[in-house]
Amino acid sequence: MQLRFTKMHGLGNDFVVVDLITQRFRLKPHHIRRLADRHFGIGCDQVLTVEIPTQPDVDFRYRIYNAEGSEVEQCGNGARCFARFVRDKRLTGKQKIKVETLAGIIELELTPNRHVRVDMGEPILDPKRIPFTADQQAQTYALEADGQQLQVGAVSMGNPHVVLNVEDTTSAPVDHLGAILESHPRFPQRVNVGFMQVLDRQHIRLRVFERGVGETLACGTGACAAVVAGITQGKLDETVSVKLPGGELEIHWAGPGNAVIMTGPAATVFEGQIQI
Amino acid sequence: MQLRFTKMHGLGNDFVVVDLITQRFRLKPHHIRRLADRHFGIGCDQVLTVEIPTQPDVDFRYRIYNAEGSEVEQCGNGARCFARFVRDKRLTGKQKIKVETLAGIIELELTPNRHVRVDMGEPILDPKRIPFTADQQAQTYALEADGQQLQVGAVSMGNPHVVLNVEDTTSAPVDHLGAILESHPRFPQRVNVGFMQVLDRQHIRLRVFERGVGETLACGTGACAAVVAGITQGKLDETVSVKLPGGELEIHWAGPGNAVIMTGPAATVFEGQIQI
Repeated sequence: MQLRFTKMHGLGNDFVVVDLITQRFRLKPHHIRRLADRHFGIGCDQVLTVEIPTQPDVDFRYRIYNAEGSEVEQCGNGARCFARFVRDKRLTGKQKIKVETLAGIIELELTPNRHVRVDMGEPILDPKRIPFTADQQAQTYALEADGQQLQVGAVSMGNPHVVLNVEDTTSAPVDHLGAILESHPRFPQRVNVGFMQVLDRQHIRLRVFERGVGETLACGTGACAAVVAGITQGKLDETVSVKLPGGELEIHWAGPGNAVIMTGPAATVFEGQIQI
Repeated sequence: MQLRFTKMHGLGNDFVVVDLITQRFRLKPHHIRRLADRHFGIGCDQVLTVEIPTQPDVDFRYRIYNAEGSEVEQCGNGARCFARFVRDKRLTGKQKIKVETLAGIIELELTPNRHVRVDMGEPILDPKRIPFTADQQAQTYALEADGQQLQVGAVSMGNPHVVLNVEDTTSAPVDHLGAILESHPRFPQRVNVGFMQVLDRQHIRLRVFERGVGETLACGTGACAAVVAGITQGKLDETVSVKLPGGELEIHWAGPGNAVIMTGPAATVFEGQIQI
């Protein structure tokens, strides 16, 4: 059949979005792999399907698949694209959208400037639950890597992050030190590595080496983890603008006991039809 | 404006094809870069525009642009996509299409099985014109590289190629030896490096390290050069099927004084519209 799709991106993290409400199609893993292929298909980091919810009092359900066909739990950049998609396609007129995901029900809100606010949940600072080997919870931890003694922050946003303060993200050894820290023995489930440059109390620059992937254009959970680490260390205010290589996110955290709120853009690149 | 386009590929070498006959639009380098961007645009190796010819007795004109916006002379994979495009879009009903390119007028022919035959011109075997430093023209040349004494073929198809015979392309050191040979001092304009495994007189496997690019899925001129080298060395018949990582091409060469004819597939992947 001829499948309609929309190509979108959130700060360069790109998605093929397929409306499975107005189109009936059962997407199988081999379809996902074909859609995601950048030479023989459409090309994207992930495929996102928009579906009718299975639970009551929920507006939509969405599912996200990695390029190789496996389903993933959640993705901040994908959540923003989803929210823009259902509004632009007039599948809803609501500002606040309740959506069923593999990670549970989340609420997304469209801002007046067409950005999307996403509740990213509470950060985890307890080393055991990150997981990170440390005697006790602290603002920063001494960590030895690559023959250096580093002072790092450690945060989980559902996935583990280590955050390093650097003088200048441009010259930070992201690939070299990222690869070493990713597999550091004190992070038993490996770790995402953030390189944060604090510009002032409301602005940081950030580059993230993602676990199993390498450096990416815009890691949403990495932006949350860096701001949480910076606030915990007394360096940042509650609302911080994060400059990533792919663009900017606003992160808000009111401190322990509160969820991290991420606000950012989502863009439609083109509309297409593919024979599948 | 809303620009219609078609995404196509020839053995994985992919193109955004824009019909500038039924659409009026002046594509500037920044548009090309945007269309070619795999995260923020459509994504392709090259952008191909289909235009009204400027010369008499020619059916079309096409132009090919690299992802960074510069115009390139010719491309076998692009030529095949162009021919399929003008037929599928019913811009012509002809089997043989005469087309104006930056490299001159070429003729393309659609075969009954929907493949496209492309006249790739005469191969150049004279070392001076390849250019390759050698005392005289020969079937093979002794070449020292990476501490080894290699026996290689040397052919130009408008661009210089060196061809190595290997036992097995799968285990051939394409990246390592490709990078060394690409900049070998005896090839003053650098060189594309082909690793050819002769299966029998009508079948070869081939991997190509392209000058300035690295290994690619399917180098059309590389396939021509390898077959010409193999025929010159008495190892191949006039018509040879070439298995490349991206798929198969048929190469025909009737010997000195004749053009090389390449026949292969071109596929449409999807149709789209982008706001530009």
